[in-house]
Amino acid sequence: MTRQAYKTISVLPMAGRERLIGRELSIEKAIRALWDALNGWRIETERVRAPDALNRILAQDVVAPADFPPFDRAAMDGYAVKAEDTFGASPTNPALLKVVGESRIGQWPGFEVHRGEAAYVDTGAPIPKGADAVVMVEYANRVSEEFVEVLSPVAVGENVSKRGEDVKAGSIALKRGAVVGPAELGLIHQLGLEEVEVFAKPKVAVFSVGDELVELFPDAPPGKIVDSNTPMISSVLRRWGADPVASEPVPDDVDAVKEALRRSLESCDAAVVCGGTSVGEKDVVPEAVDSLGPPGVVVRGLAIRPGRPTGLAVVVGKPVFLVPGFPAAAYLVTEFVVIRFLWMAMGHRDGPPRRTALARLSRKVPSHPGVTHFVRVSLRREGDELYADPITASGAGVLSSITRADGVVVVPPELEGYEAGERVWVYLM
Amino acid sequence: MTRQAYKTISVLPMAGRERLIGRELSIEKAIRALWDALNGWRIETERVRAPDALNRILAQDVVAPADFPPFDRAAMDGYAVKAEDTFGASPTNPALLKVVGESRIGQWPGFEVHRGEAAYVDTGAPIPKGADAVVMVEYANRVSEEFVEVLSPVAVGENVSKRGEDVKAGSIALKRGAVVGPAELGLIHQLGLEEVEVFAKPKVAVFSVGDELVELFPDAPPGKIVDSNTPMISSVLRRWGADPVASEPVPDDVDAVKEALRRSLESCDAAVVCGGTSVGEKDVVPEAVDSLGPPGVVVRGLAIRPGRPTGLAVVVGKPVFLVPGFPAAAYLVTEFVVIRFLWMAMGHRDGPPRRTALARLSRKVPSHPGVTHFVRVSLRREGDELYADPITASGAGVLSSITRADGVVVVPPELEGYEAGERVWVYLM
Repeated sequence: MTRQAYKTISVLPMAGRERLIGRELSIEKAIRALWDALNGWRIETERVRAPDALNRILAQDVVAPADFPPFDRAAMDGYAVKAEDTFGASPTNPALLKVVGESRIGQWPGFEVHRGEAAYVDTGAPIPKGADAVVMVEYANRVSEEFVEVLSPVAVGENVSKRGEDVKAGSIALKRGAVVGPAELGLIHQLGLEEVEVFAKPKVAVFSVGDELVELFPDAPPGKIVDSNTPMISSVLRRWGADPVASEPVPDDVDAVKEALRRSLESCDAAVVCGGTSVGEKDVVPEAVDSLGPPGVVVRGLAIRPGRPTGLAVVVGKPVFLVPGFPAAAYLVTEFVVIRFLWMAMGHRDGPPRRTALARLSRKVPSHPGVTHFVRVSLRREGDELYADPITASGAGVLSSITRADGVVVVPPELEGYEAGERVWVYLM
Repeated sequence: MTRQAYKTISVLPMAGRERLIGRELSIEKAIRALWDALNGWRIETERVRAPDALNRILAQDVVAPADFPPFDRAAMDGYAVKAEDTFGASPTNPALLKVVGESRIGQWPGFEVHRGEAAYVDTGAPIPKGADAVVMVEYANRVSEEFVEVLSPVAVGENVSKRGEDVKAGSIALKRGAVVGPAELGLIHQLGLEEVEVFAKPKVAVFSVGDELVELFPDAPPGKIVDSNTPMISSVLRRWGADPVASEPVPDDVDAVKEALRRSLESCDAAVVCGGTSVGEKDVVPEAVDSLGPPGVVVRGLAIRPGRPTGLAVVVGKPVFLVPGFPAAAYLVTEFVVIRFLWMAMGHRDGPPRRTALARLSRKVPSHPGVTHFVRVSLRREGDELYADPITASGAGVLSSITRADGVVVVPPELEGYEAGERVWVYLM
């Protein structure tokens, strides 16, 4: 926006206000508008080796090729028995059973267990035919090579892992969109799958705009400020599975921003441009974006606090996020707008699955109707209650309000805040 | 343990039971015993460049070298004023102020604002001397080059970020032991710190023991099972900041385990050996550990379910964790014993800061007194309540009980379980 445009707004202040505020959209509507304007953009998928799937997002259901476990097996070291033979057994009145064999891991037992009989089983070994429970070794007294005393009863199925108990052949073991954590990674290995189809990590360019900004270096010139938003935004992107490509700050100059953005989008799938998005004189980013061809800026102004000056744009068919330069706003907009969009593109309609907790507000939280408020809170356990203390911060510029926060309470637009003592859902950070 | 030793246990079953169960320790006592036996083992620290600090754990407090912001600055684009000049202002009764200058980002304003005056300020620009509030540009009507109408009152301090408001010089901006997330990374940059002191990532060897185990490969021989624990345990370690060094499965052979462990500890700071830790005949790991010199196995048997056969050992002065081979037990023991120990060594007395949520149990959870139970639960939001559904699983071998779990309820040893409807704390996974 040039000086001239600024003056236009200044002499028509209410219209200027309208220009921004009148177009404020909810996050849902804004993301939908961006999506519609993108017209076919998508996140690619790729096959990765099972060991490399950690923290990736599945692009296809993982179907079990076979039952797991593949046979009934012992869940404990002990003796495979017919459970009814142990009923009433106790240390003073043990059940005496004949030991007819041993079942070893990786070998098929060639014998059967009948009434009055038992077979030693290793944990994980197949249960011999006829047996329906396992007496733990601690409750068995091997009185001789041939006989064992059972000191405690077992129920049918006790200490037995049934065939298919963990995963049945043909069943969906993991759903498309699931995040591969440690347990999912173990399951993929357990199923013997060598590769899985995952979403490619979207490459997202990140840079900040501002004459005052410098990259971290030993002695920043006086009056300059280190660009903390670019590493912060990059970290949020990395944490949620994207591949950030950070570059140095760009001055408040339309041509410089245009060139930086054009170059970034040659190799990246999307871009986050931080700063220069408000209605002030120096807001060169929207102009730079629009100069790169239609559709340009699709949404300008979101009905969220902080984060109102957020813009969504399409440049060379790719999504570009105009994120406010205030650190706390930059953080929240990246978490709740950029990440939500990227995860929507990976089948998560409402963004990534975030952990939530119910907590009791220790203070009133006011909000404007029609606007979604993100209230940073710290959490405190007190007896059997979790309390959320709203963090007092005089502006979105206060980064420590984020480092001190344990979570975020989202006040929806249909409410006028929450009262002290109300129980609210907290998104845990 | 040789066949002979097994027989000794078998013919003296209660003593054998005692041998394991009688020594069962709580996690706290077991970790303390391991720590005492380690005698000086510690996790090193290192300096990393600020951009590389993401997800690292601070080994020193981060002290702010200067106030941030370094001066009072505008939190909004607008007009710096004396607040009292705006009291009573409205669109129908605006306050007319004389514009005496502009304050730009990165430049020091060389003028002062007196009663009846205003100065245009960019967001982030220094507040000129004399001014004590900022009127947002949306509430200002620049009627001419020389005058501006203020349409709404502002309070003293409104839209001003005070010097040191975010972080005061000399204050501890981040504490030793803090995990560097995106916001902390931003703050480190904002403070202009080039490097921070963090804990080195402990190198932890991970391997599984079992004749039946193979590394993932196209066609596992019949009767063999893919080793899913090693990648799973490695993933948990990686997720919590360690540097896992996974190797292939080792057969149930004392010499093979001994050699694998000896070799691992040449280059690693610690080891996790999965499987072969119970009292069955094939439990070669404790014997292998003890053969590598004193103190060897320090703790055998924890008062936890699942995970009872867990062992803690010291080999060549380094901690070695003997983790049960059942996948769910392996997972939980890694999360709640191994990780807890490693984080204790990094100043987190009670292990890593885990997210917790209060939830209402949908079913009764039984437990044995004197034993800590880890109950996997899935969480369900229903209206204004979070419900925890205990996951029914017939054994610790059921890995899908972990993939389906949203969290874990820890039943402490002093309780005999929880009733249906009780509100409990859930550790979110």
